Amino acid sequence: SRPRTRKENEHVISNHIDEWNIYQALFVEFLGTTIYVFIATIPYYDSTSPGMALIALIACFGKISGGHFNPAVTIGVSLCGRLSLKATILYPVVQMVGGLLGAALTRAVQPSHEYIDNEYYFEKGITVLRENVKPGWALLCEGLITLFLVLTYLMCTLEKKKTNWLLASLAIGFIAQANILAADFITRASMNPARSFGPAVCMSFFTKDVWKHHYVYWVGPIVGSALAAFVWRCLNWQWSCSLLPK
Amino acid sequence: SRPRTRKENEHVISNHIDEWNIYQALFVEFLGTTIYVFIATIPYYDSTSPGMALIALIACFGKISGGHFNPAVTIGVSLCGRLSLKATILYPVVQMVGGLLGAALTRAVQPSHEYIDNEYYFEKGITVLRENVKPGWALLCEGLITLFLVLTYLMCTLEKKKTNWLLASLAIGFIAQANILAADFITRASMNPARSFGPAVCMSFFTKDVWKHHYVYWVGPIVGSALAAFVWRCLNWQWSCSLLPK
Amino acid sequence: SRPRTRKENEHVISNHIDEWNIYQALFVEFLGTTIYVFIATIPYYDSTSPGMALIALIACFGKISGGHFNPAVTIGVSLCGRLSLKATILYPVVQMVGGLLGAALTRAVQPSHEYIDNEYYFEKGITVLRENVKPGWALLCEGLITLFLVLTYLMCTLEKKKTNWLLASLAIGFIAQANILAADFITRASMNPARSFGPAVCMSFFTKDVWKHHYVYWVGPIVGSALAAFVWRCLNWQWSCSLLPK
Amino acid sequence: SRPRTRKENEHVISNHIDEWNIYQALFVEFLGTTIYVFIATIPYYDSTSPGMALIALIACFGKISGGHFNPAVTIGVSLCGRLSLKATILYPVVQMVGGLLGAALTRAVQPSHEYIDNEYYFEKGITVLRENVKPGWALLCEGLITLFLVLTYLMCTLEKKKTNWLLASLAIGFIAQANILAADFITRASMNPARSFGPAVCMSFFTKDVWKHHYVYWVGPIVGSALAAFVWRCLNWQWSCSLLPK
Repeated sequence: SRPRTRKENEHVISNHIDEWNIYQALFVEFLGTTIYVFIATIPYYDSTSPGMALIALIACFGKISGGHFNPAVTIGVSLCGRLSLKATILYPVVQMVGGLLGAALTRAVQPSHEYIDNEYYFEKGITVLRENVKPGWALLCEGLITLFLVLTYLMCTLEKKKTNWLLASLAIGFIAQANILAADFITRASMNPARSFGPAVCMSFFTKDVWKHHYVYWVGPIVGSALAAFVWRCLNWQWSCSLLPK
Repeated sequence: SRPRTRKENEHVISNHIDEWNIYQALFVEFLGTTIYVFIATIPYYDSTSPGMALIALIACFGKISGGHFNPAVTIGVSLCGRLSLKATILYPVVQMVGGLLGAALTRAVQPSHEYIDNEYYFEKGITVLRENVKPGWALLCEGLITLFLVLTYLMCTLEKKKTNWLLASLAIGFIAQANILAADFITRASMNPARSFGPAVCMSFFTKDVWKHHYVYWVGPIVGSALAAFVWRCLNWQWSCSLLPK
Repeated sequence: SRPRTRKENEHVISNHIDEWNIYQALFVEFLGTTIYVFIATIPYYDSTSPGMALIALIACFGKISGGHFNPAVTIGVSLCGRLSLKATILYPVVQMVGGLLGAALTRAVQPSHEYIDNEYYFEKGITVLRENVKPGWALLCEGLITLFLVLTYLMCTLEKKKTNWLLASLAIGFIAQANILAADFITRASMNPARSFGPAVCMSFFTKDVWKHHYVYWVGPIVGSALAAFVWRCLNWQWSCSLLPK
Repeated sequence: SRPRTRKENEHVISNHIDEWNIYQALFVEFLGTTIYVFIATIPYYDSTSPGMALIALIACFGKISGGHFNPAVTIGVSLCGRLSLKATILYPVVQMVGGLLGAALTRAVQPSHEYIDNEYYFEKGITVLRENVKPGWALLCEGLITLFLVLTYLMCTLEKKKTNWLLASLAIGFIAQANILAADFITRASMNPARSFGPAVCMSFFTKDVWKHHYVYWVGPIVGSALAAFVWRCLNWQWSCSLLPK
């Protein structure tokens, strides 16, 4: 049959990550995670701001890096075989650095006494378990909401044809908002190790309590993301062979 | 004239449900209903999360199953002659199972004493009539808002040409949000027997009060959905003959 | 030059309103206004529901009737020369009937004592001036917000080429939401004589106070809409001759 | 090779600003800034209205003027080499006039005693530093959020190919909403000298306190916007030569 270069159409994200563009992709992943963590950890009335920021960030940077801003998403995309090994290793590194910078900027723009004010900080800024919530419930909850988020990411961006980044950014932003509103009472809805680690480091200068159960925000999202990749692979079984490099 | 295979373009949803894909469609209907019911029944501040989740779910799974996640929607689509008999029977079964699983997950991630706390649970999680609301009013209200939801679904997805799933997901998600905000004071806005039955089963281990007037959440949505199908058939009278299988 | 039938492309809305389709258009204007007024007048926590309903209604019915659901919008479109005389006369009639039905349905689904409860009803359901607000301020405010709404409608739907109904529905729904949030403290943000008249008729069985300053909700929106049509005509001066029927 | 007029495709915005259209562009920038400042400064419950208004305004006027409504955005676009010198000078002038008119209209539609009520006015209407917030923090915060806003504007509108104004309007509106929710507790989130200057002039008839630290709302946004232009230029290095006029 005709030797069409279908691989280029299908590897929507990884075909951006060639030798030259990997620096661009890493830069926007760093920048996007910084912006996301800054907006997610600053005090606010309304829980909808992180989802809205995500819509804008994916609309801006999706074409360049895929718009992950989250090590759990990077792991999920990689487990679907759609990201190079180099990007799988380097994306989480710059995301963690971005998360640290975003959390440091949140710390920098407000008075010290407000920053360490428990009333606020353990409310939204850092992600800790709510009172009476057992670690097992929190793990299940973080795992579930990250499964929803990463499955939405995989279904909307890893298309056979050209990704519709508008559809993808709205779907991902709105599921993130729904998850944050839903899980706020249980785990404060992180879904993102970079978003949990950065603020925890900044806060640990004042109290070590933030590290209690911190593993929940690593294990939950990573297991949820792996499950999402498994579901995506099941749903795409029929055309899976065309995904393999020839 | 030219024997174009117009049927394939027009039966937007049912042409996905061929012998092979019906399992995929049933799986995503199950998964989507689980996610929707989990997000709709977990405690939250803001009533906008179910609508947002619906936007993401339809954007993800619309192309595979049509994105119903609701027996009332399935009945409406079927009454418009756009779903095979097999799917009309099996979709509601998996949706009910998904609703049960979603409600069980809500139960699993929170402390028992918070789950059975009336202050919360009769507030959002399960759908019961508000105080002083008569069953007739509730039936009218559930019927009306389901009519709005299903009519939006039918107008936006059962297009003659290719369905614009971005337009459809946003329109359906936003009308769901508007309905939930509007009917919250009267019936808590279910519009979905799967979303009402699952949480009621989970709650009935603690109290049987949830079954009082439960029929409202079956009769209202199903009658509203049938009315929506009737309105859609009236509006599409002119090209209805082309819908009939040759 | 080539005698292209440009008129058909340009008269985006009025070319739907031919002899046969006018009944369809009138039916969906009636139905859409009923839904809009029902959702806008029912008690709710959050003022965002009318804008969300508008997004869904325009996405559903825009292609059939233009998606006005508002006599002020109909007047504005007509003053731009984009609606037949018949539609200009009949649209507002069915919109007023729809507004009455929507308000009656709101009345039907709730207890009488809650309906006439001033705390609620003069809060959201009916549109009356807030305390200390002079009629002149209210006229200016209603005129301004209707100008914003109708100008958005005209700029987004009366395109030279095919209307992007997704862009139009989101722009119109979001400006409606912004207007409602902004003017809520002054006039309760009607922007729509049908939305003000229907609930006022239903409420006048209990109190005649609703008719005080009711003219504000007719004069303000109609003057604002005429101004929007004037601004639209100024902005489209350069291609205005191609709009005239040959 | 073929002398394609690529410049016309690439200079998406500036190719609108030819000799004839500059008056149209200036008019819609004036009108849009008036609407934005009116909606942003009027009392409201919910901080989401300015972002929603921005979505509608960019959807309406983006094709005509680029949809800046903000001197900081105009400076950013100009530093990317995508705006004529004439527009760079005249846009901010009409934006400041529009900001004054919008703030005057806000003043006109409400009682005097409510307008000068500190409880309200220093809450949302005018942008002043929150208690205990040092000017340096405020500068950093305004600079950061304007960087996010202008970078989103530049990434989404200055495309090589045709700008997707729907994607651009949603991304810009949602990042504006996220920024306003995030920075509300620190600087009240202006991101826009025209939005800060107009209300400050109107308020200065009652109190001179509004001018304290007013420079923050000029220096922060302009420095943030210049940084955004720098980041955009870095990310577009590879095709930067094609941007230069031949």
